[in-house]
Amino acid sequence: MIAVKKVVLDVLKPHHPNALEFCLALSAAIENSTVKVNVIAVDEKTESLEVFVKAEIIDFDLIQGVINQMGGALHSIDAVVVRNEPDA
Amino acid sequence: MIAVKKVVLDVLKPHHPNALEFCLALSAAIENSTVKVNVIAVDEKTESLEVFVKAEIIDFDLIQGVINQMGGALHSIDAVVVRNEPDA
Amino acid sequence: MIAVKKVVLDVLKPHHPNALEFCLALSAAIENSTVKVNVIAVDEKTESLEVFVKAEIIDFDLIQGVINQMGGALHSIDAVVVRNEPDA
Amino acid sequence: MIAVKKVVLDVLKPHHPNALEFCLALSAAIENSTVKVNVIAVDEKTESLEVFVKAEIIDFDLIQGVINQMGGALHSIDAVVVRNEPDA
Amino acid sequence: MIAVKKVVLDVLKPHHPNALEFCLALSAAIENSTVKVNVIAVDEKTESLEVFVKAEIIDFDLIQGVINQMGGALHSIDAVVVRNEPDA
Amino acid sequence: MIAVKKVVLDVLKPHHPNALEFCLALSAAIENSTVKVNVIAVDEKTESLEVFVKAEIIDFDLIQGVINQMGGALHSIDAVVVRNEPDA
Amino acid sequence: MIAVKKVVLDVLKPHHPNALEFCLALSAAIENSTVKVNVIAVDEKTESLEVFVKAEIIDFDLIQGVINQMGGALHSIDAVVVRNEPDA
Repeated sequence: MIAVKKVVLDVLKPHHPNALEFCLALSAAIENSTVKVNVIAVDEKTESLEVFVKAEIIDFDLIQGVINQMGGALHSIDAVVVRNEPDA
Repeated sequence: MIAVKKVVLDVLKPHHPNALEFCLALSAAIENSTVKVNVIAVDEKTESLEVFVKAEIIDFDLIQGVINQMGGALHSIDAVVVRNEPDA
Repeated sequence: MIAVKKVVLDVLKPHHPNALEFCLALSAAIENSTVKVNVIAVDEKTESLEVFVKAEIIDFDLIQGVINQMGGALHSIDAVVVRNEPDA
Repeated sequence: MIAVKKVVLDVLKPHHPNALEFCLALSAAIENSTVKVNVIAVDEKTESLEVFVKAEIIDFDLIQGVINQMGGALHSIDAVVVRNEPDA
Repeated sequence: MIAVKKVVLDVLKPHHPNALEFCLALSAAIENSTVKVNVIAVDEKTESLEVFVKAEIIDFDLIQGVINQMGGALHSIDAVVVRNEPDA
Repeated sequence: MIAVKKVVLDVLKPHHPNALEFCLALSAAIENSTVKVNVIAVDEKTESLEVFVKAEIIDFDLIQGVINQMGGALHSIDAVVVRNEPDA
Repeated sequence: MIAVKKVVLDVLKPHHPNALEFCLALSAAIENSTVKVNVIAVDEKTESLEVFVKAEIIDFDLIQGVINQMGGALHSIDAVVVRNEPDA
């Protein structure tokens, strides 16, 4: 099985929802996951987030959907880790 | 279950209560927690704190309430970690 | 047996396919592998990737083929690890 | 139980008692503790100490009392760690 | 027994054979070894390599022979580790 | 029991006895100890040493005595660690 | 027993014997040892080596003898570790 295990994303979002709400919404979309959000820069109307997602299997489309629903924009994909493992 | 496991906060507070009293008050509000307070800057009337809270489940509203009761202000959320785990 | 265990590559690619699709395609070509892609620089038409591949046995020609199919170019080989182990 | 587990203090003291005697006096006041003193700066009449205290339970008033008895002054509290654990 | 366990070498080589082929050739010459090649600098006609060899027993003459066969030149020995162990 | 577990000392000494002899003399005075001496600066007539002593129990007067016997001078105490443990 | 466990030496040597031969000769003189040689600087006629020796018991006179036999000169002792352990 080939599975995305980790992604690091650069995301721009409005001040609301805040980083906590943003992180909770991402987490709710991905089972067995750890989501970490670092607030990198705060501007007048927006915040830049560094978002780390680690999970058994990451459905990237789901992540992108949640980011958009929260009013955010995926600025770039900064890192990706994929594992190709034999099926058990 | 989706639970906030860690938050890093940037907090502004008056000199009194001091960092020790501030840290104790936050800890009292969150069971099974570790609260760490670093004093980052000391100005004439205020102190900037970096506050780390780690716990099994963090109730963020409770934290914000304690900060306000102590005369402090939550300046920003700097990092959040959320885990989505299957229920036992 | 002599096996390439790890390579670090400097790759230039167009914006599409994106880093995630690029990483998935490399992973699919190498069994029992971990592929990590860091996006190092983003220019108007291209992206520079640092690509780490770790696997039991890396077939380098296969990697080069996938990079070319994705419209990328292998700019340089930055590191290689090879192990010479007695056959079991 | 809520217990202060660690404090980092910035302390100013005269040259005598020396850092060793200062450290021993603090240690004697806190059971099951480790006290570490780093001498950060030495001026004509005073020394600046960074004092780390780690213990099962830190009684902060006791620490402050010892610092004063030794002719020192608590300049600031630089860090505090508090744990809230269920009673055994 | 006295055995060379590790050497770090500074090697200059032409662009061909490439770093992968170079690393494979070194590995083939030393049983039970790990050979790591980092490409440090790329000039018009040559590449500078940092070559790490770790093995149970390193036969240094063999390494030097392979470097020369590949058209490379041993520029310097940067580090050596030797162990003197009682015979089993 | 309250015991000094570690001290870091800044010591000035003449070139003879050398760092090895100095280290051996300190070690001989403290049972179950590890003594590490780093030579920090070498001047025309003197050497500055950073001396680390770790032991179950450090008798500081003994250390000071040895330093003086060797013709050295304790320039400053840079760090001290003391443990207060319940008696077994 | 009091034993020198580690020494770090700054050694100057001619280009021949090379670092590998130098390291082997030191290792041969000290049983159950690990000797590491880093070449720090290469001048027209000489090389500066940082030599690490770790062993159960280091006979320092033996080391100094080998350095001299190889045409080298002990420039300075940079660090020493001595342990004082109860006899078994």
